[in-house]
Amino acid sequence: MIKVDTSHALLKEEILSYQEEVNRIHHMMFQRKGEGNEFTGWLDWVHAYDKEEFDRIIMCGKKIASMCDVCIVCGVGGSYLGAKAALEMLKGNYGTTDPEIIFMGHTFSATYTKQVLEYIKGKSVCINVISKSGSTTETAVAFRLLQKYMEDTYGDSAKDRIFVTTDKTSGKMREIALQKQYEMFYIPENIGGRYSVITPVGLLPMAIVGIDINKVMNGLHAAYEDMKSSSLVDNQAYRYAVARHILQKQGYDVEVLVTYEPCMKMVEEWWKQLFAESEGKEGKGIFPCSASFSTDLHSVGQFIQEGKKVLFETILYVTGLEDDVEIPYLEANMDDLNYLAQKNLSWINKMSFEGTLQAHEEGEVPNIVVELQGLQAESFGYMCYFFFRACAMSCYLLGVNPFNQPGVEVYKRNMFHLLGKPGYQ
Amino acid sequence: MIKVDTSHALLKEEILSYQEEVNRIHHMMFQRKGEGNEFTGWLDWVHAYDKEEFDRIIMCGKKIASMCDVCIVCGVGGSYLGAKAALEMLKGNYGTTDPEIIFMGHTFSATYTKQVLEYIKGKSVCINVISKSGSTTETAVAFRLLQKYMEDTYGDSAKDRIFVTTDKTSGKMREIALQKQYEMFYIPENIGGRYSVITPVGLLPMAIVGIDINKVMNGLHAAYEDMKSSSLVDNQAYRYAVARHILQKQGYDVEVLVTYEPCMKMVEEWWKQLFAESEGKEGKGIFPCSASFSTDLHSVGQFIQEGKKVLFETILYVTGLEDDVEIPYLEANMDDLNYLAQKNLSWINKMSFEGTLQAHEEGEVPNIVVELQGLQAESFGYMCYFFFRACAMSCYLLGVNPFNQPGVEVYKRNMFHLLGKPGYQ
Repeated sequence: MIKVDTSHALLKEEILSYQEEVNRIHHMMFQRKGEGNEFTGWLDWVHAYDKEEFDRIIMCGKKIASMCDVCIVCGVGGSYLGAKAALEMLKGNYGTTDPEIIFMGHTFSATYTKQVLEYIKGKSVCINVISKSGSTTETAVAFRLLQKYMEDTYGDSAKDRIFVTTDKTSGKMREIALQKQYEMFYIPENIGGRYSVITPVGLLPMAIVGIDINKVMNGLHAAYEDMKSSSLVDNQAYRYAVARHILQKQGYDVEVLVTYEPCMKMVEEWWKQLFAESEGKEGKGIFPCSASFSTDLHSVGQFIQEGKKVLFETILYVTGLEDDVEIPYLEANMDDLNYLAQKNLSWINKMSFEGTLQAHEEGEVPNIVVELQGLQAESFGYMCYFFFRACAMSCYLLGVNPFNQPGVEVYKRNMFHLLGKPGYQ
Repeated sequence: MIKVDTSHALLKEEILSYQEEVNRIHHMMFQRKGEGNEFTGWLDWVHAYDKEEFDRIIMCGKKIASMCDVCIVCGVGGSYLGAKAALEMLKGNYGTTDPEIIFMGHTFSATYTKQVLEYIKGKSVCINVISKSGSTTETAVAFRLLQKYMEDTYGDSAKDRIFVTTDKTSGKMREIALQKQYEMFYIPENIGGRYSVITPVGLLPMAIVGIDINKVMNGLHAAYEDMKSSSLVDNQAYRYAVARHILQKQGYDVEVLVTYEPCMKMVEEWWKQLFAESEGKEGKGIFPCSASFSTDLHSVGQFIQEGKKVLFETILYVTGLEDDVEIPYLEANMDDLNYLAQKNLSWINKMSFEGTLQAHEEGEVPNIVVELQGLQAESFGYMCYFFFRACAMSCYLLGVNPFNQPGVEVYKRNMFHLLGKPGYQ
């Protein structure tokens, strides 16, 4: 479902020279001997996940869909980006979902929060709050507001409208859920936030809007099978990891993930978290950015073509789309577009991709092309696993732990002090 | 309305050492002697704009609002980003507008296009197509589809529902509008796309959703007055320009524009076009990226704190918000958040900003703080002019023409060849 073409960036031999190093890391990973190995539950999650809970997610998704107009998904970071990426990729920007999903708990913005609280008034609402510990401030603050809103609005039956995804054995969120009798789903202890979209964290929001999460798991399974080998000829994820590693060593400090479908915008954001938190430590890492083409060819395109040579591009191009639109023939042809009459938009988009690839090669910008088949649930699952494996390999090549994020604590500590949080004054 | 604080990045003396150079460029700009001076119409646009047309925009905005449920704004680049930035900043993410505005003409995506065409079925629709020449392919293709939809749906009266913003004297779009009798608004010939939000390009979409465009012009006027001096003590735009110029010379190749309000997301995109297209040429320029905090502190935050030192941040922080939300006191306090009870979200957001500023300083990431007063129409106008002036100054300091974009043509030429466009085969 994914093919990686590195020929617009590097020579085949450059990639293959990493085969031994990749073999070593591959075995280390699967023998659970790499740094941070206690967080590699995602590696064979497709075999390890709780089937009973999975069926409960599907049933609960249907129940929530039948109960409400709006479901608020309350979370931040990995408890936000994966679900939002899946929903936009699979349901599109104007493919309105039923129920409508609104995200909260990822911002302290009063403007945003007040607008959402106004917007839901008079609508039938459910909540899915997602927090491993319950102590992440953005999410906890939003949930306090939402919980009050729900209890004021629905009284005792508020508890039937609130669904909690949290740790199985500890944490404040779990305590609240137990005491209030909210239905619970569990975040595995061996899967970190940015790898959690394939757990209840991402699957419940998907199930609520009717995405077939069995198909997501099928895609995950197919990727797992396709990536069993550590060969840089066969393993597309490792080829991508090695290519970006070499490019960084050549002095490219920025990677721009480029997509050609507006509904992939949140996939870009999800990808940024995955690579930024995994790689960006010890003064190392590639800075992950993104762009949406051809839109942004009329924006950052100028810089990419002719500006300072600091970046390379990874094009995540989706093929085999279901939807298409034909350009009509117009007798008058005042816009001179009849040369495109009877052509499909997807073909025009493809030509814009090919023309741009060629232009940026001329501009001496290295391009890695990742071709993804389809905007379906299977493709989403496959893509997630592809990037997980590529990211872990990238980090081990770089020599950093792919699964911790020590730097995230620094702003929290300062903020807690300023907020006067007990223990931080 | 804007204050720039460079103390978290540079010494005052470093900035002031550029005073002479800045004086020289300032006078060159106002004497219309700089490279690209034929596109500096925005410089004193607040005095030069056509008042009659301005009144017609207000009237037409009201007319469109009364006629339709959905208005499609069809454009790309500068004919898209500015209007979208204004609408989101001033109306918010869930502050639904009446009529609803949908953007098209900025993508070849079949998925997106088909979803929009499905979405508008049965709704009452108007169109504002924005294109200087009418030959920009993304916009022309979308407009051909929309024009056909409108004529199929409304017959002869389609012409009363289509509004064209284009060149006054030439171009295909003008010809089409004349022949079809569409009402027209004009893009001044001395203002380029990325500086055009203060012309009918941005003002008509704003007027349609009821934004008071007189106030936008008031903000523009206030900024014009505040930036008359070239003194680096008084002129905030020039101070920002010099600071980012010095930081690039120190080796920072990436600038991340950070905001703390989700409704500022499109302002970030607008800013990226302004700086990328203006600076990114001749192998020069800072690569412009963006992040939305505190959301992205749980994403790229880790990289910024501890990753490779390739970037500096410009924090565009909005103060004096109208909306606020108070954290309720809860007797049970199961979430341990009572230390925030009776506090406002806007204050918490401020503390997260201050804590992060301090954390990133500890992490040796230079920060420029741009404080903007309010999320109002005046602030929007003021902010636009601030960034215009800063951008032009930045480019002249760098030694590039701020107003051309030669690199955008390369992908177009390749694409036209692949599409079989007459003259490009």
